Amino acid sequence: MPELRYDPLRQCWVSIAMERGMRPSDFFKPIDETSRGGFCPFCQGNEHVTPPEVYALRPDGSPPDGPGWELRVVTSKFRALAMEGDLNRETEGVFEKMNGFGVHEVVIETPQHDLGMADYPLEQLEEIIRAYLTRLIELEKEPRFRYIMISKNHGGAAGATLAHSHSQLLAAPIIPPAVSTELDAAREYYRQKGKCLLCDVIKQELEAEERIVSQNDDLMTVAPFASQVPFELLITFKKHQHTFAQITKSQVTSLAWALKDTLTRLKLTLKDPAYNLAFHIAPNTNAQLPSGNWTTLEMDFHWHLEVIPRLIQIHGFERGMGFYVNFTPPEEAASYLREAGPPDVSGSAL
Amino acid sequence: MPELRYDPLRQCWVSIAMERGMRPSDFFKPIDETSRGGFCPFCQGNEHVTPPEVYALRPDGSPPDGPGWELRVVTSKFRALAMEGDLNRETEGVFEKMNGFGVHEVVIETPQHDLGMADYPLEQLEEIIRAYLTRLIELEKEPRFRYIMISKNHGGAAGATLAHSHSQLLAAPIIPPAVSTELDAAREYYRQKGKCLLCDVIKQELEAEERIVSQNDDLMTVAPFASQVPFELLITFKKHQHTFAQITKSQVTSLAWALKDTLTRLKLTLKDPAYNLAFHIAPNTNAQLPSGNWTTLEMDFHWHLEVIPRLIQIHGFERGMGFYVNFTPPEEAASYLREAGPPDVSGSAL
Repeated sequence: MPELRYDPLRQCWVSIAMERGMRPSDFFKPIDETSRGGFCPFCQGNEHVTPPEVYALRPDGSPPDGPGWELRVVTSKFRALAMEGDLNRETEGVFEKMNGFGVHEVVIETPQHDLGMADYPLEQLEEIIRAYLTRLIELEKEPRFRYIMISKNHGGAAGATLAHSHSQLLAAPIIPPAVSTELDAAREYYRQKGKCLLCDVIKQELEAEERIVSQNDDLMTVAPFASQVPFELLITFKKHQHTFAQITKSQVTSLAWALKDTLTRLKLTLKDPAYNLAFHIAPNTNAQLPSGNWTTLEMDFHWHLEVIPRLIQIHGFERGMGFYVNFTPPEEAASYLREAGPPDVSGSAL
Repeated sequence: MPELRYDPLRQCWVSIAMERGMRPSDFFKPIDETSRGGFCPFCQGNEHVTPPEVYALRPDGSPPDGPGWELRVVTSKFRALAMEGDLNRETEGVFEKMNGFGVHEVVIETPQHDLGMADYPLEQLEEIIRAYLTRLIELEKEPRFRYIMISKNHGGAAGATLAHSHSQLLAAPIIPPAVSTELDAAREYYRQKGKCLLCDVIKQELEAEERIVSQNDDLMTVAPFASQVPFELLITFKKHQHTFAQITKSQVTSLAWALKDTLTRLKLTLKDPAYNLAFHIAPNTNAQLPSGNWTTLEMDFHWHLEVIPRLIQIHGFERGMGFYVNFTPPEEAASYLREAGPPDVSGSAL
């Protein structure tokens, strides 16, 4: 019989429908259709095609916007938000709007066209995390940005339109809804119990063990109790930390390990599936806020990473109602992923 | 420059990014991969393969679960929820769960394997609406069901796993999150202003005209101001009505016309795209509720239909953050759809 489970972070019910019992092999798909051949604007030598770089890793001291880089951050050509004018909030009857004021950047993670994030050596993952951190801290200086989203699309089924591995940053004057809901949940839990909700979830998951995929001293990867989709994962620091911007040098190394370990297990178990990665962090503390005790709220939040494999097409109940039906219980997903390893995270997964 | 727009119903911001300017032809896709050949459990003569019918239209008076039907409703073989035992709510530390107590039904809309909903004559659409209504009213008699979801997946990209046109009902002991948020918005607006939010939206949209796709005396179809995805549509009665179960006989005919007109415009403009249909209605008034003035809340809600074309893969900001970036402004979508018609809704669109 199916089971309804409540997700305390997202504050919603999910149906875990064991009857269909979908296994990893039910999700294997031919490699997806993002163009692997043809001209690639993210490859070395094509730097003139992208907007100028705002950050780059150039160990050879090469000049900007030419070859020689190991990582580049550029403004997106297809901007979801843009840095022009001011917010210009306007009300039109029941509707409200403002300029799409913000920054949309692309992190070109590697000069190598055919590698995925699971394939990088640990050092390269550390450099990517440092690039996120540097841009996050820089973008948070602008007080009109309420939130910096960091996200990755791996594979066409996850929304990637270019095969060359990259991730994206979006600095916005609003807090995204999925994070808003989690902030509300964190604040309410703290108000009621005087402690952090995710800290309590982590404690319980470490005791229960059955949904833990892997861990190191600092971080753990867990298949959430009320996973919305098969093989959904959450990567989090075990100790409370409200935003990614707080992480220390040694924690960067730990996080690189956790990412490498988790993405390698996914790749091995599900044959390189499409997935999204999303950083759920506290809002920008430098934002000029009209009201509310947001400082407390930010401290109550426990930042984490969502890993969302895109194995199946979500259907009407999910897209139209927000009610998810998951045919792979998280306990089984965690078990498959544990069996895949421990991968050798020190080298390449290829 | 992109524009940020606030959706008062869903209570979230959306980026309408005009720069990319995606037109209908950018979304044309080869017909999708749901099996059009092979054995079909929903075709006439294969009734023994499905669970027994709970409702059917049999003008020839033929016996149940054999040929002769024009429409059948059966229990789903892959149940997201099932009618067994009781709710059995349990708390496990920070987590809550209960039995997946509910009913999951499939409406086989036609014996004809290759027709889509846009292709049916008006009379058949009326019969489908009457089937939804009959099952809704029957399922709402069970007080443990808090909500009856009605939804449709057209095409593999919308989550349909069988090509033969069908829709689904899911009676659940919880209110789905997307409806919950809209209920909150409706209640808050009513509390503040003493009137219905969607009534005000409708009034403003009818005055503005630019996002209206089509209308009749009773209903209108509009591309919402803060559309999350290209060509998203909302179909609603112009006059306040809190649930689908309230509609009159003549309103069934009007709704059939609106569905036929809207889906035909979508089919013509976007070459038979995949889409989801979702009925957003008030919760079950017969539910035994532990607290709260839900009766008022239900009356404040204005039921409507969401039509969500599945033209693009949603990406990390959308799936991971709930922040949608839409490259087709709703004013342009409405304009394309208006130009597609008026289709001859009295006959078939084929």
